[in-house]
This record gives sequence, C-alpha cells and structure tokens, in this order.
Amino acid sequence: MPKPLSSTTAAPGTADGLDLDRIRDRTADIVAEFFATRTGPLARLLREATEGGKMFRPVLCTVGWHAAGGPPADEPALHLGASLELFHSSLLIHDDICDKAGTRRGRPALHRALEAEYPGAGTGLAMVAGDLLACWHQEVVDRAPLTPGQLSRIRAVLAQMRHEVFEGQYRELALAQQGPVEDLDQILAVARAKSGNYSVTWPLVLGSTLASADPAAPSALHRYAVPLGEAFQLRDDLLGTFSDPEVSGKPVGDDLREGKPTALLALAWSTADPGQRRVLRAHVGRRDATEDQIAECQAVLGALGVPGRVESMIDERYELAVEALEQAPVTGPAYTTLRRLAVRLAYRDN
Amino acid sequence: MPKPLSSTTAAPGTADGLDLDRIRDRTADIVAEFFATRTGPLARLLREATEGGKMFRPVLCTVGWHAAGGPPADEPALHLGASLELFHSSLLIHDDICDKAGTRRGRPALHRALEAEYPGAGTGLAMVAGDLLACWHQEVVDRAPLTPGQLSRIRAVLAQMRHEVFEGQYRELALAQQGPVEDLDQILAVARAKSGNYSVTWPLVLGSTLASADPAAPSALHRYAVPLGEAFQLRDDLLGTFSDPEVSGKPVGDDLREGKPTALLALAWSTADPGQRRVLRAHVGRRDATEDQIAECQAVLGALGVPGRVESMIDERYELAVEALEQAPVTGPAYTTLRRLAVRLAYRDN
Repeated sequence: MPKPLSSTTAAPGTADGLDLDRIRDRTADIVAEFFATRTGPLARLLREATEGGKMFRPVLCTVGWHAAGGPPADEPALHLGASLELFHSSLLIHDDICDKAGTRRGRPALHRALEAEYPGAGTGLAMVAGDLLACWHQEVVDRAPLTPGQLSRIRAVLAQMRHEVFEGQYRELALAQQGPVEDLDQILAVARAKSGNYSVTWPLVLGSTLASADPAAPSALHRYAVPLGEAFQLRDDLLGTFSDPEVSGKPVGDDLREGKPTALLALAWSTADPGQRRVLRAHVGRRDATEDQIAECQAVLGALGVPGRVESMIDERYELAVEALEQAPVTGPAYTTLRRLAVRLAYRDN
Repeated sequence: MPKPLSSTTAAPGTADGLDLDRIRDRTADIVAEFFATRTGPLARLLREATEGGKMFRPVLCTVGWHAAGGPPADEPALHLGASLELFHSSLLIHDDICDKAGTRRGRPALHRALEAEYPGAGTGLAMVAGDLLACWHQEVVDRAPLTPGQLSRIRAVLAQMRHEVFEGQYRELALAQQGPVEDLDQILAVARAKSGNYSVTWPLVLGSTLASADPAAPSALHRYAVPLGEAFQLRDDLLGTFSDPEVSGKPVGDDLREGKPTALLALAWSTADPGQRRVLRAHVGRRDATEDQIAECQAVLGALGVPGRVESMIDERYELAVEALEQAPVTGPAYTTLRRLAVRLAYRDN
C-alpha cells in the first residue's frame, strides 16, 4: 500500500485544495431552495430522505468542473451536483426496498416508516415516493442555470449514468439469485456499473463536461476515475465484510449475511477447498447467521488470503488512477484535491 | 346522456378526422427504433413491457400538436408521444407492484414473471427495471428532434405531469388505508391528478405546447381536457365496478375487491343507511370476496342511485368539455377528432 497522505491534510478547505465545505454547503442550499418550492407531507418526507447525506457525488461533480478549468463561479456544477443528490436519495429509497433494509442514515428506511403508518402499503408508498424524487432530480437539472450548449453536452452523460446504475443493480440482484459466483470479471463489471462509475466516474465526468466543450479534460478524468471507482468499490467490499462496526457504523459481515456477490466471495469461491466451500455455503446469504458463523466465514476468507489479494487489487487501481491524474491536464487546487481524493477513496476506513 | 356519435364514425383514419392509425404506427416505429439501440435481456423485457399498449397518450399528444396548428410534419410530437409510452409502461410496472396485480396486457405482470425466474427478488428486479424504463423515457425526450425553444417549453409541463401522477398515486395509496372515504372532492382531486390529467390533459397540453409558443391553444385545450379527464376517470370507475367482464375484459367488481377509493364509493358511503354500510364494510376491500358478495355491494350502490348520479356527473363534464372545445381556436380534422374523442372517453364501454 502506498503511503497515504495523512487524513488531516486531506481535510477540505485547506489553502491549497478546493474548499469542499463550501461546495457541500452551497449544494445543501440549492437542495433546500428546491424543496422550499414543494409543499405537503410527501415533500416533507422526501426532503428528510434527501438531507443528511455525505454529498459525495455533488462534491465530485463540482471538483470535476474545476478540474476541467471551469470558471470560479461554479453555480452550474453546484446545481447539477444538487440534482445528483436527489437522484441518489431516490435510488437509496428503492435500494432499501430491494435489500429489505431496516435503517438508513440512522433512521428507519422510508418503506419501514411508511409501513408503520400504513400497514401493508409501505413498499408501494415508498416506491412511488422514490419515483417522484427521481423526477425532481430531473427538474433540478432542467431548472439549473445552464446554457443550451451545457445542457446538451451533459444529457448523454446523465443518461449513461442512470442507465448503467439501474442495469448494474438489476444484474447484481439477478446474480445474487444464482448462488456462488466465481467469475471475478463479471462481478467487477457489475460493481463498476452500479457503484464505481455511478459514484465516482460519472459525477466527475458530468462536472468536467459541463465546464468545457473540449473533451480532453473529461476523457482524462474518466481514465482517473474508472480505476479509482473500482478501488472505492473493492474497499467497500472489504469494509462490508471485515470492518470494525465501531469505526464503520455498519454491522460486521453485512455483505456476507446478504449474500452480496462481491469480489471477495468470487476470489474465495474460486480457490476454496471442499471443507471451506461447505462453511461458506452454510452461512453466506443467511440473514440469521450468528456472529460466530460470520467469524467462521471471515476465517475462511482470511485463510485463502482474500483480504490481501483485494488490498493488492486496490493498490493496482490506486496506482492507475494516480498515473492517469499525473497525465491529465489538471493543475492547482483541483489537482491537489483529486490527489487526496484518490487516497481517501481507496484507503478509507469507514 | 347526450347522443354519442356512433363509434363507427369515430374510427380513426376517416376523411375528415386525423389519421390516428398513422400516429399509432409511427409512434410504435419510434419506440422500436429506440429499443433497437438497446441490447441484453433487460432491454428485451422492457421492450416487451412497452409494446402492445393502446398508445392513448401518444395519440393525444400528436392530436394536441395538430389542434394547436402545428405543421403537418409532426415528428416532434410523435417523438414526445413515444416518450410518454415509455413513461407509461414504467408507471404500469410499478403500479402492478403496488396493486399486487397478477397480469398486464394478457401476460404475467413483470414482477410476477421475474419472481418465477428469481424467487424472492421479483419485486426488486421489476422495480429497478421500471426505474430504468423511466430514465429511457427521458432519453427519448432528450433525443427527440426538438428545437431548444420547444424543449424548454415542454419541460415544465412534463415535470408537472410526472409530479402530479406520482403524488396522486401516493395519495390514493394512503387514502385506501384510511377506510371509507366520504369526501367526494378529495377523491376527485386524487383521480384528476393520477388519472384524468395524467391520461388526457397533459398529453394534449404537451403536444400543443410543443407546436406553438402562443399559450392560447394549450390553455383552450386545458379547459377541454380537465373535465374530459374527470369524465374518463368516472367512466373508468363505473366500468371497474359494474362492467360486464365479457365486454370490458376486466373481472367484474375489481375496484370493489381492491377497496379503491372511487367517487362511487364516496357517494355510497355518504348516503348509505346502517344496513347498507354493514354490507359495504363486510365486502369492500376484500380480495377474496365472492361473486355473490360483489353483487350484494353492487345492489347497495344501485339502490342508492349511485350509477345514475355518476352518469350525470359524466354528462356534466362531457358538456363542459364540448363547450370548451367550441370556444377553442381549433378547427378542421383536429376539431373533428377532439369532438369524437370526447364522446369516446366519456361514453366508452370498455
């Protein structure tokens, strides 16, 4: 593992990087301004479901703008980023239904909250609420202060992002039904679509495409973002399988209980001996697996050297991302920020 | 009830009306052209879910274009109409999940078909598939051959349509949980949002807004469409409660079994005596109600004069629509078509 820049120097708002706190604050303002135009109990629910996120994608969108040489007045990127936050919240509402999740951001998942109020109708109500929020995402795009040229440039990227994430989700859900998946390439392709590209690549490419009609910057950022998005997803898989709940805030072994088809499991399945396969088959994908059973599965993965192999995969992808960044026409505070983001996304501990 | 024009003269393609068959065929071609750009099993599923509809909303969209004096070359309206067909199919996929529907257009509903293939994941897969199709609707809008002026004019109408329909669905689902709803105005407001305006008003207004920067035509069509949309929904309620399954193709009394909060039930609840209330309370909203029990409920509604009162409400709204049409700046084949559509929507028998 390369030596990460310390996380204190990666804090937003330092002199030589972009002021990420300002980006987050202004994004939150734009989201709030949009919701101020909506009334009624459903709008209130959707506002609550949208607030309190980390605004990871909006930040990347505006970083992409600056990386591509967009002017300091970055309102177009901030509005587009705010729209991504609405889209993401709509996605999470539906995702929580798919995953039968109980909580989200420390509160009951929307379908659970609605089920308590309207027994038997929680799923339907939350699904429709998510549909509406996805439309509001489009409305924020449509109302953003963009020139016709900017709007027409980003449309195809937005379409690609939405297409990929839903197709990726669909493929992941279908894969999870097939039992053990050993095909690492297939797993990585799904993860790229539904996670890495969705969370990292397309937000950056959107912001940079918005800033500049010259395709050089978006292309260079694309080369940086794709491996970094994979590293981000692989780190997510490691955290979802091995993380300390105290640090990550997630129950340990959640991915194992869900039977989520991850790179870790693909590596494990493809090298496990019959005894190890028996252990995995007995406990993976069981929501009621005990802590001991989860620990047994973790021990199998450990014995197979899976965590180390995934760490190496992350290192490789981190290196590719940094190389691409060095060759990109990006300088100044945006460069510094992207350099730090690479470390943070690949080597975060929660 | 006003004497309807006979349904043979209302057939599309006659000399003095618009050629609705051409509109349907070209819309189907545009939908097929879009799907030809998509590959994979999910795209195939979504194509099948989109094909075979009546293309009611696309037809109204292109009729709106001609009613507002749009040029005979009506490709912009046809593309926008095709996008509505994709949106509608995505809505139906989610609607069938909400309503736990078993079939759609004579085939298993998508969530059922997927459940058979992926046990336990049918709802999630169908939800995500519907999400993707809604995004493709936006993609068809984005790729339509529209001028920037046309695009900017229709955006707010599309946003309004999507907002209203989802909020209406949400309110209907929530209302259905509250037990008997006697408030007719509330029921009509929900029906207007999720059905009448969605199916009639916004498609017409979209096509006319696309055709003309002059707001006179869209405003006039709005005055025609809103009461007609209500008549359309009230007819739907009558058919869903009393129709002959041989003619309508729907199981008789479906709305009663679902406990759908309709104008019919609101009228019944607000005037029923204790004995009649007992009958309704015992059987309405029970999916396992027998044919005899449904017939008992129908008899209560009949004894309360509900069907006649709803017919009068339809007549009033039909008259309002026709009056508005007479005052609208609409002539020629578009006028003839709208005159016939009013009859067809208010007085159809299936």
